[in-house]
Amino acid sequence: MFEFYMPSQLCIGKGALEKLKQLPMEAAKACIITTNGRSVKKYGYLAKVEQLLKESGIESILFDKVQANPIRKHVMAAAQLVKKEGCDVIVGLGGGSAIDTAKCVAAMAVNPGDLWDYIGDGSGKGMDPSNSSLPVIAIPTTAGTGSEADPWAVTTNEETDEKIDFGNRFSFPVLSIVDPELMVTVPKRLTVFQGFDALFHATEGYIAAAANPISEILSLRAIELISKNLPLAAADGKNLGARSNMALASTISGIVESISDCTSSHAIAHALSGKHPKLTHGECLMAICLPYYEHFLEDAGERYIKMAEVMGEDVKTFDVKERPRAFLHALERLMTQCGMRHIHMSQYGVNKNRAREYAQFAYDTMSGLFDEDPRRLTFDETVDIIEQAIV
Amino acid sequence: MFEFYMPSQLCIGKGALEKLKQLPMEAAKACIITTNGRSVKKYGYLAKVEQLLKESGIESILFDKVQANPIRKHVMAAAQLVKKEGCDVIVGLGGGSAIDTAKCVAAMAVNPGDLWDYIGDGSGKGMDPSNSSLPVIAIPTTAGTGSEADPWAVTTNEETDEKIDFGNRFSFPVLSIVDPELMVTVPKRLTVFQGFDALFHATEGYIAAAANPISEILSLRAIELISKNLPLAAADGKNLGARSNMALASTISGIVESISDCTSSHAIAHALSGKHPKLTHGECLMAICLPYYEHFLEDAGERYIKMAEVMGEDVKTFDVKERPRAFLHALERLMTQCGMRHIHMSQYGVNKNRAREYAQFAYDTMSGLFDEDPRRLTFDETVDIIEQAIV
Repeated sequence: MFEFYMPSQLCIGKGALEKLKQLPMEAAKACIITTNGRSVKKYGYLAKVEQLLKESGIESILFDKVQANPIRKHVMAAAQLVKKEGCDVIVGLGGGSAIDTAKCVAAMAVNPGDLWDYIGDGSGKGMDPSNSSLPVIAIPTTAGTGSEADPWAVTTNEETDEKIDFGNRFSFPVLSIVDPELMVTVPKRLTVFQGFDALFHATEGYIAAAANPISEILSLRAIELISKNLPLAAADGKNLGARSNMALASTISGIVESISDCTSSHAIAHALSGKHPKLTHGECLMAICLPYYEHFLEDAGERYIKMAEVMGEDVKTFDVKERPRAFLHALERLMTQCGMRHIHMSQYGVNKNRAREYAQFAYDTMSGLFDEDPRRLTFDETVDIIEQAIV
Repeated sequence: MFEFYMPSQLCIGKGALEKLKQLPMEAAKACIITTNGRSVKKYGYLAKVEQLLKESGIESILFDKVQANPIRKHVMAAAQLVKKEGCDVIVGLGGGSAIDTAKCVAAMAVNPGDLWDYIGDGSGKGMDPSNSSLPVIAIPTTAGTGSEADPWAVTTNEETDEKIDFGNRFSFPVLSIVDPELMVTVPKRLTVFQGFDALFHATEGYIAAAANPISEILSLRAIELISKNLPLAAADGKNLGARSNMALASTISGIVESISDCTSSHAIAHALSGKHPKLTHGECLMAICLPYYEHFLEDAGERYIKMAEVMGEDVKTFDVKERPRAFLHALERLMTQCGMRHIHMSQYGVNKNRAREYAQFAYDTMSGLFDEDPRRLTFDETVDIIEQAIV
């Protein structure tokens, strides 16, 4: 038995932003959540969203303090603002940071206490919110997070460095607008990091214990799309065809996160970004991926072969026993095609000597994801993956 | 730009019925809607559902008058009962007739007037319901309708013979329980008719103008599953593996109906069943399919080839120009494998001499579906399809 639940209304494709003119819910006042970066202002995306909301008769205010790897403190500040201003809809405009913060704000604006009261792992109190969230409209400007099609919202507790998912059946966006025209301005490095994040949502979801017959076909399609289109989007950010396919793939991977699950690779990456907030999520996942997937060559061999095939590897040219390794070749090739074969996490202060500490932190904060791996990693194996990933 | 919206929580697989013990909504009193057939009682499905609801603290009453090709009059009678008894959840237990009736009852129990006030085609008044529906729990006992994963509810107006879809964003089931163990008792003929209904939801959704990148992968997977498993389920109804795959495929096809659309084949079939209620829906679609798909060999050639491939045809053995025809071969083969190559609609009174009348009725009642065809059929072509289908 498996479950499929992804109630968000998704509008995907060029021109989707116009959907703001015909919202599926009543609303009077929006709080738009963006990061403290310049791009949504510089490229006019914020002004366009404000204008379209205005045409729908919706007033809006702005909270623009969210940082990459967003923090608990900003969630609570924005929730206060929303209560004070009487907003009835939250718009997350930006990458995963903005959308994930929007989801947390939508919950904390109508529930008592602190965000960490509702976090189900680490030092979180694991309480269920007593009230359903305010409606969230997600408007991603990057192709990676998948947050537009899942209930998950990752924030860091700035007091403990814990970076953990919040999420429940009320934290899906009500409406998600996935318009590739908002993504053509993302710089190459971020395009690649985000694209690999989307890829790993699909690959992890494909090998996870929670995988099911619907998530499997979605995973394979997302992996195929990313493999074909990420190098094109990296080479030419204005390639709207490639951007469209990446936007689609990222959203499909988000559905996979809703109905399957991520694996311990995400636990490890969150532990490292929790300790080193300048390390972006996708970059960290790229650094980890080869040693991580190396560990399951025997346990998920058939699945590796299928992933390699949709990534364009000619699996038959490998010795039968070596065929699962074609997936690792495909990952290496894709990184090379995107001009980022080698990731140096040490530049952000990530330190090989602290590998055991990082591993322990991954178990302490997101232990559940280790249950999703094709085989349970030993602690030493987890340390080994982290050590190999740090260059 | 395309939209994905399918907010139902789907529980799919053996043992899914147990989900009734942990409902995602509060409820105190259920109205269970079933058909006037014996099977849900005879095989104990109704008793099991009543028992599980009771264990969840939910009282239940029964409305068991629904007929195959359900009628408006029964919807209104059940809605009256629901209002009188103060039920707060509607359970549709059975095939499409029961589930579709449940959706209509859930709307009419909380909205004024008559069902036909809210029907958007034919003599319907096309009004929007002012109130959202009561929550519906769909428990299909057949693999075919897809109604568990879409908002559509087909009923016949017994005064006009019109058989038309009702549906809006409130008419998705809140929870759908797709348990193949409830399907092992379906007799062979009905198994085949229902299986082909599911197949045609996927094939029509695949060639429809509304097809999109997500519906496409879902369609192809459903077509593949049905092609492999329907002959097995037809040969041995107790084959739980085949029943499970058919249940999955039917639900995937339901998602396709939510995010893509059916084509005029469904308009024609509804017109014929509206005039001849003893003619079951799937049987009618089977009778129509070969002359219908013949008309789009040139317009949807590439799509026909892809469908033929997932149905196991060796497309390369056909002359290049003839390759789309491999899809028609695959349909014929599947009907033969299921022991139903020839359908005789004339046994239900369907009359070749009335072909123009049937065609006109299809246009009058479900005109919108003709816009979804790969090419707009002329009226004479529609008549031709119907004439060829009547044997």
